[in-house]
Amino acid sequence: MTDEVVPTAAALVIGNEILSGKVQDTNSRDLALLLRRLGVRLQEILVVPDDRARIAGAVAHLSKSFDWVFTSGGVGPTHDDVTIEAVADAFGVGTTTHGETADLIRRHYGDRCTEGHLRMALVPEGAALEVIESVRWPTVRMRNTFVLPGIPEVFRMKLAVVEAVVGRHRPFVSHAVYTNMDEGHLKPLLDAVVEAFPNVDVGSYPTWTDPRFRTKLTFDGLEEGAVVAAKERFLASLPAGEPQWTDP
Amino acid sequence: MTDEVVPTAAALVIGNEILSGKVQDTNSRDLALLLRRLGVRLQEILVVPDDRARIAGAVAHLSKSFDWVFTSGGVGPTHDDVTIEAVADAFGVGTTTHGETADLIRRHYGDRCTEGHLRMALVPEGAALEVIESVRWPTVRMRNTFVLPGIPEVFRMKLAVVEAVVGRHRPFVSHAVYTNMDEGHLKPLLDAVVEAFPNVDVGSYPTWTDPRFRTKLTFDGLEEGAVVAAKERFLASLPAGEPQWTDP
Repeated sequence: MTDEVVPTAAALVIGNEILSGKVQDTNSRDLALLLRRLGVRLQEILVVPDDRARIAGAVAHLSKSFDWVFTSGGVGPTHDDVTIEAVADAFGVGTTTHGETADLIRRHYGDRCTEGHLRMALVPEGAALEVIESVRWPTVRMRNTFVLPGIPEVFRMKLAVVEAVVGRHRPFVSHAVYTNMDEGHLKPLLDAVVEAFPNVDVGSYPTWTDPRFRTKLTFDGLEEGAVVAAKERFLASLPAGEPQWTDP
Repeated sequence: MTDEVVPTAAALVIGNEILSGKVQDTNSRDLALLLRRLGVRLQEILVVPDDRARIAGAVAHLSKSFDWVFTSGGVGPTHDDVTIEAVADAFGVGTTTHGETADLIRRHYGDRCTEGHLRMALVPEGAALEVIESVRWPTVRMRNTFVLPGIPEVFRMKLAVVEAVVGRHRPFVSHAVYTNMDEGHLKPLLDAVVEAFPNVDVGSYPTWTDPRFRTKLTFDGLEEGAVVAAKERFLASLPAGEPQWTDP
């Protein structure tokens, strides 16, 4: 059971607006939550500027290191949108105009269609254009790398395509315990659980502002039995009368 | 003027809780906003799991590539807090207990002080312990790498130490224009500005949900005169009667 291969993934967030603090990135968290639900382990999030060489280098590295890569941003028509060219560079191919996407753009904009609009039909040579019933505008996938837009509403919409293509694997199980003990006192209790349950990922998160508890403990893994047993072992080790609650 | 050296930086966010989507990272944005104000260019944000080798590899790479590195997370007393050891690994040194910090911890916890609590006095050998008037709890800096805590309230508090040590450089100037034109129609106008003002960073950000405008344009740089001139050139190129507003 523990040798089961869990698919891995990385997110590549592209945009000067994130690095300058103008915009809070939320796309990587929406992706993280979806991948968690699908049973895919997100191993890295990387944010880089709108720089073709930097993006290309990152895609080349990440696409070799992880099963799936998801880029966010840099796919519009303007000068700072260089993700398509960079993904093509990363895979050593050129770019080409995707006929059906260009037709969709021409129909959408009619007489007002410009060369700029048609730039959005540009794809790396050899890319797959993913379409599902609920998201008919094609989504670019170059081998294991999905090219997703940066606008959060559109990014979230496209996650349905990711789910359809990546598929559902064995989902992670997650249990939580909340206590008023601090981490210094919890450490020996947690060390014992970590040692006894090597397949359970035990997390400890102190809070400074939540009046209801001081530390949140999480027990995550693929085997529900082990996760529950680790949580129960931890609960049994708490001092008598120490207040705590669990979820679930 | 344009040859002025702008200090560069990277943020390394550490924590399984970010990659699993349990927690939205906000520390990197708070850091981004501070660095922007200080005139330091944040060039990369990287999020990695609580894995000593992954953190060490990232710190080794980032500390060579950028003038400043800021880590967030993994500095508590529990098994999943391995940032101090990883930063020591990255610089090829061991760890040692910092006497004054250990004294502070003993005074704070009194009789209830545990070995776990004292783990928070561990530092890489050769680290500087930064203290300022308003933040008297020492902040670990190993050469160009600041080791900051993950709890957002504490992270924000420590940014005052970052500001004191990094110092203020020439700040970035940023102007914005909001229009109802879409990017396909804006592209030729923006291309002209980008070509005429190579020292101004022009950004274009469409929105799907803001009822007040369709696209936000930003003009950023170190030279206020060039930033304002680029914005004015862009405004003058808009079709007559096209609604727009600017900030400032």
